[in-house]
Amino acid sequence: MKPPKSFTDLRELSTEIHHLNSALALLHWDQETYMPAGGINPRSHQISILSTLIHEKKTSRKFKQCLQKLVHMPSGKPKVKGLSKIHLAMLREWHKDFNRAGKLPASFIETFSQVTSEASQIWAAAKKENNFKIFAPFLEKIIGLCRKKAEIYGFEDHPYDALLETYEPCMTTRKIDVIFGGLQKQLTALLKKITAAKQIDDRFLHRKVSDEKQLELANWLVANLPADPAYTRLDLSAHPFSTALHPHDSRITTRVLPNAFMSNLLSVLHEAGHSFYEMGLSTEYWGTPIGEATSLSIHESQSRLWETIIGRGLPFWTHFYPQMKKKLPLLKNIPLDKFYRSLNKVQPSLIRVEADEVTYCLHVIVRFEIEKALIEGKLSVADLPEAWNAKMKEYLGVTPTNDAQGCLQDIHWSLGDFGYFPTYALGNLFAAHFFSAFSKQHPDWEKKVEQGELAFIRDWLKVNIHQWGRMYNSEELAKRVTGKALSEKAYCSYLKKKYAKIYKF
Amino acid sequence: MKPPKSFTDLRELSTEIHHLNSALALLHWDQETYMPAGGINPRSHQISILSTLIHEKKTSRKFKQCLQKLVHMPSGKPKVKGLSKIHLAMLREWHKDFNRAGKLPASFIETFSQVTSEASQIWAAAKKENNFKIFAPFLEKIIGLCRKKAEIYGFEDHPYDALLETYEPCMTTRKIDVIFGGLQKQLTALLKKITAAKQIDDRFLHRKVSDEKQLELANWLVANLPADPAYTRLDLSAHPFSTALHPHDSRITTRVLPNAFMSNLLSVLHEAGHSFYEMGLSTEYWGTPIGEATSLSIHESQSRLWETIIGRGLPFWTHFYPQMKKKLPLLKNIPLDKFYRSLNKVQPSLIRVEADEVTYCLHVIVRFEIEKALIEGKLSVADLPEAWNAKMKEYLGVTPTNDAQGCLQDIHWSLGDFGYFPTYALGNLFAAHFFSAFSKQHPDWEKKVEQGELAFIRDWLKVNIHQWGRMYNSEELAKRVTGKALSEKAYCSYLKKKYAKIYKF
Repeated sequence: MKPPKSFTDLRELSTEIHHLNSALALLHWDQETYMPAGGINPRSHQISILSTLIHEKKTSRKFKQCLQKLVHMPSGKPKVKGLSKIHLAMLREWHKDFNRAGKLPASFIETFSQVTSEASQIWAAAKKENNFKIFAPFLEKIIGLCRKKAEIYGFEDHPYDALLETYEPCMTTRKIDVIFGGLQKQLTALLKKITAAKQIDDRFLHRKVSDEKQLELANWLVANLPADPAYTRLDLSAHPFSTALHPHDSRITTRVLPNAFMSNLLSVLHEAGHSFYEMGLSTEYWGTPIGEATSLSIHESQSRLWETIIGRGLPFWTHFYPQMKKKLPLLKNIPLDKFYRSLNKVQPSLIRVEADEVTYCLHVIVRFEIEKALIEGKLSVADLPEAWNAKMKEYLGVTPTNDAQGCLQDIHWSLGDFGYFPTYALGNLFAAHFFSAFSKQHPDWEKKVEQGELAFIRDWLKVNIHQWGRMYNSEELAKRVTGKALSEKAYCSYLKKKYAKIYKF
Repeated sequence: MKPPKSFTDLRELSTEIHHLNSALALLHWDQETYMPAGGINPRSHQISILSTLIHEKKTSRKFKQCLQKLVHMPSGKPKVKGLSKIHLAMLREWHKDFNRAGKLPASFIETFSQVTSEASQIWAAAKKENNFKIFAPFLEKIIGLCRKKAEIYGFEDHPYDALLETYEPCMTTRKIDVIFGGLQKQLTALLKKITAAKQIDDRFLHRKVSDEKQLELANWLVANLPADPAYTRLDLSAHPFSTALHPHDSRITTRVLPNAFMSNLLSVLHEAGHSFYEMGLSTEYWGTPIGEATSLSIHESQSRLWETIIGRGLPFWTHFYPQMKKKLPLLKNIPLDKFYRSLNKVQPSLIRVEADEVTYCLHVIVRFEIEKALIEGKLSVADLPEAWNAKMKEYLGVTPTNDAQGCLQDIHWSLGDFGYFPTYALGNLFAAHFFSAFSKQHPDWEKKVEQGELAFIRDWLKVNIHQWGRMYNSEELAKRVTGKALSEKAYCSYLKKKYAKIYKF
């Protein structure tokens, strides 16, 4: 059945919003890549004006009027019969988005934006000067605003659920408690075993490599990935990121650190994973929720899958290491096995973004537990540094010597992004969860990767994950792909097997 | 006196429109520089949607309501007393823009956009295949639409005046007839003298220079120009252009042709001239018409001043040639005098964009006279190729062997840009007109440039031209700066003096 006019009108409006979002994405991309420094002040105005326009369209009377012709409000139950399954899913998600977008009053959005804009600048100074006290009052304000936000959005069980929903719609605090509880125990146990084993000397990975050489390596790697160069590009930025204006215009960046050339290449693989997801979304349904990524965790699962399961894996480097050796003389006397083990060296550290596969999720769990306690009011801002240090000691066995390397290290809280951190760990769990299904269907995958074949992995991900967009939420997707709900099992089993071999226990 | 609220509201709306225009400019810039090829289809949607939004804001009820509180409609006479001269000028220009923007019905804009979008594709094919006939019916449609447009805008004397107004508000067909009449005669006479003189051997300028070397030269030149690198950048694109998102974010591009390295460097100077203008606009009044360029001709006067009067001048190369010689071995045995004369070699050719200083305006005059005749209906589309060839023969002494190198060479007509071409020639005349005042105030300018000093030229242009924005129209500006109305005199006298020396007559 041809959908009614109000449906096609709504779809047109939704597509228009998506195109404006793409223009906004370009403003951000340019700011991080090519914008002359003097452009920053006008850029913040351009971004703010365009963001406001987009928000106005998302909450517009036109949007509401179309929606009201199609679904009962506020329930969202369809009024129109005979719509296809995909059209019904679009309606469901439009209704959800509209409801959520309209909940926060403009005055609240403005306050939130002003406070976090100032707070992120104060945070940068606080981190630089290692002075938590100057940031503390802002963090208190932000926590107050986040509690208020949770109240406005509403929740059944825990205020943190309402914050989680922004980033991971079907996840709850309770579910995460269960998953992270099991994960933390197993990771800490694994870490103990690794710490007790013979340590790896990875110093060659931290020898100086010139910017030019690193760029050459990054471009060589990108050229060997299964991506159409007509749809993507690689640039440099201070922090690596991925952004997509459309499945046919999806861009990644990397950075070069003189003494960590593999950080650059792993960033390329991480961002390429994000980019494959965006390029794998439906072009037919682009502009509707079905052409959008499911959630942040699923996005992160794609980046981590390529960065870690593939990109830190032996089959991948069995193929690529001989080529890289030719390009990088410092590797001359390093055999593949030593390279592979060094690349996967586990060492508890203070900084999340530098963490290895085993300790990474522990960093995230520290933040999750602290966030939850802050939102619950069980932890005061004044006690945050101490609580942070205690948890780092408990889970990772290391204690920050200052707050800059402790609770001030991440920008997220200053931006009001409470509820975001868990997606970093969930991404790893989803990656391993999906990959367990993939490897059953492709029992010879390691052999193929050893031959440099990678497209079949991307194809599988496209068919099983990317193409669905928001047709399914992350919970449904996990079940569809693997038959099982998400848990920490696949991830822990993957890590245990991999690291037992590397550390020989 | 503090301006009334309706004034500040209107100013805020105008600034918002300018910021959205900047986002639009970035979409265009990116399309020509870094966008992956696959991004073109979504890009055209992004551009079209944002353009529509901007047009809606320019013609919005809010704009009208603010304006109506401030001026009598339709006369534009201010209602409010005590406004400053600058605020009155803003009002005058807002009123003018609003009136003009509202005149074309949405249906006309859509038709125009559809026809020209298709026509520009057909034009590209027609040029490639050297087949004027397939383009002719589209050109006929476009001429019809342009006549219609002129009617809608209204005119007193000549329909072409209404088309000119889009690009050069205070210029009329009658005024151009007078100026171009004198110009054509003097140029043709000068050209005859040059053709009769001993010709220059400039073959070394067409030796192959690698892309890398050309980029190095372009960056070296930019680094020596009086521009803050925090406010500008240089990139590559298929056709050189300049775009500004703000006076603090003004970008230029160049291109490298293997056998024309000086074309690259002259493009850099041309686009830098445009960029200086944008960077010289008032930041205080940015977002209002007083922070906007006066007109296309004045813009072109800035680019041509830097490209030709400065950048093809002996003082400039007296300073820079020794440096360039060190960078480019092929110049080793070429003395400065030979380089300078070769750079200024005059040779009537078929293609406008490759024309020297003497013949350039003749190309423009050919187009102007033909445009005028097409709009008047005195020339039919079918007779265009013949008319073109006849005029080229008459003014430049050359005859195209095919239409691709004749009347099909420029894209402008396919885009419906009737009225645009004259600004290319007027830009040269304004440049020389302004420069005559500058050189009187800086009689030692040549000596300074020989020392590599350039900032004083840019400063003078900023104070006398850039900073005024649309405070004055081009006619008023010409009189303010020089005391005299624009004519061809300064330009012809500049050319005669320069080329008599070069060609030794």
